[in-house]
Amino acid sequence: MVGKSGRYSPKVTATLYTIYADCVRLLKGLGREQLNSLVPGKQYFAFTNGKKISRAINQSLYESDPEQWRTFSKAMARNDISQYSSETISKIIYSLAISFCASVDLTKEGDQKTPGTFFEYFISYLFSWRVGVEPRNWMQILSIDGEDTRLPTDCIFNLGPKKRKFHVPVKTSTRERSIMLWAHQRLLDGVYGTGRFMGTPVLLAETKTDTARREVIEICLPDQWRIYQLYVAKLTRIYYLDPPSAYQRLSCEFPPLVVKPFSDFFVEWVDLSPS
Amino acid sequence: MVGKSGRYSPKVTATLYTIYADCVRLLKGLGREQLNSLVPGKQYFAFTNGKKISRAINQSLYESDPEQWRTFSKAMARNDISQYSSETISKIIYSLAISFCASVDLTKEGDQKTPGTFFEYFISYLFSWRVGVEPRNWMQILSIDGEDTRLPTDCIFNLGPKKRKFHVPVKTSTRERSIMLWAHQRLLDGVYGTGRFMGTPVLLAETKTDTARREVIEICLPDQWRIYQLYVAKLTRIYYLDPPSAYQRLSCEFPPLVVKPFSDFFVEWVDLSPS
Repeated sequence: MVGKSGRYSPKVTATLYTIYADCVRLLKGLGREQLNSLVPGKQYFAFTNGKKISRAINQSLYESDPEQWRTFSKAMARNDISQYSSETISKIIYSLAISFCASVDLTKEGDQKTPGTFFEYFISYLFSWRVGVEPRNWMQILSIDGEDTRLPTDCIFNLGPKKRKFHVPVKTSTRERSIMLWAHQRLLDGVYGTGRFMGTPVLLAETKTDTARREVIEICLPDQWRIYQLYVAKLTRIYYLDPPSAYQRLSCEFPPLVVKPFSDFFVEWVDLSPS
Repeated sequence: MVGKSGRYSPKVTATLYTIYADCVRLLKGLGREQLNSLVPGKQYFAFTNGKKISRAINQSLYESDPEQWRTFSKAMARNDISQYSSETISKIIYSLAISFCASVDLTKEGDQKTPGTFFEYFISYLFSWRVGVEPRNWMQILSIDGEDTRLPTDCIFNLGPKKRKFHVPVKTSTRERSIMLWAHQRLLDGVYGTGRFMGTPVLLAETKTDTARREVIEICLPDQWRIYQLYVAKLTRIYYLDPPSAYQRLSCEFPPLVVKPFSDFFVEWVDLSPS
């Protein structure tokens, strides 16, 4: 079902290369400033443009190299990325995504929408490639009275009858809206049966920069997430490009809530089952 | 439990009068412009300040009269508002709330937070007065392992053992985040049992102004709301100061979802039961 057009296609691969190369060119001409990271074990910096400052960028994940992306995307096209470690894939994907976001931060005013839209397309491109089907953004809801209803949804990847179905909200961060991930899963569980769809949201990061102090924190609410996983719905995985460590520890708690780098999905997706 | 201090108190009543009078004074000195309302049966206008334009104001609900508020708040203090019709109460409450929001729209830049915070305090002031208890913003969640968790919540009004408990999210609008109202209700249903808390959110309006075209629409998703009410949780009421007509029609559909003017709560609150 994934072919010449659609989320994953040679045309989109080429466009992503062009965008990435443009962003890297733009950012190389700008200032770069170390941020004071209050996140244990992680260093962050930001690009600056006059008084403007970009979002925080994880230093150990950032390697601005469009050629590396081109090589990786060729391996994707051959359907053989076995020579890439999860760590390398993380860096390649993160660097492309954050370059675009930082470029928008520095060239537009208060534009949160463009980075969010780009990130959604980029993740669904990667997801489409991996699972081999196009996403859809609505589901039919049966009505016993009158006409069926179309429910707009996050990306849904349905691999076919009797096969896996993924429910994939994609966001650059969740902040105080994180309960929406579980609420939409609950809705699908209610309509189609618990576990019919595996909830595997993909998120960019949870960093927040205090621009005056040049400080970075991660906004995490692990206790609330545990309660959502217990009482609202069960998510199979929560993937991040820059996983917050406070969330990664949740896999050792009850209820199990597995937060991992998105690059792990490329390997483990065939083994996932609703938890 | 409601006394000299807290959400409802003579001090807050006096402060609300002062704020309202200040806002009315400010707005009287500014421009006023008729908007092109695409909402059937409703007329809207906006205040203007140079190039700035306030949110849309429902013409038939707006009577900027701080003295009317003073008289009404004296009736509240005597605990006798029986001489006020629901329509009059709607106007008094709406006019005070929207005057503050419009004043912030015209004097600050992109500040959504201050109107939201003010609206939450104002509604919980009225709610506290009516039900006679203070709200709280967190609940204890029992843990079978280790320590209990404190879950931050929207306003919870607990009238005491074996008495009514209200779960009251307060927002100036819901837009694409409306599922959060149901998700938080689902959480309380999960932890404390279905129907233990009655969900009665209070919202200001769902208008959206196209500032270039000077057009007002109401953003309503009634089909989605029906699905949330069926599959996520049951809300007992949804109150608005300016109720969107597309939502008011939902009470005649299945599942019943009763959207009403908030002023009705002052009369019907003793008869409400979880639906």
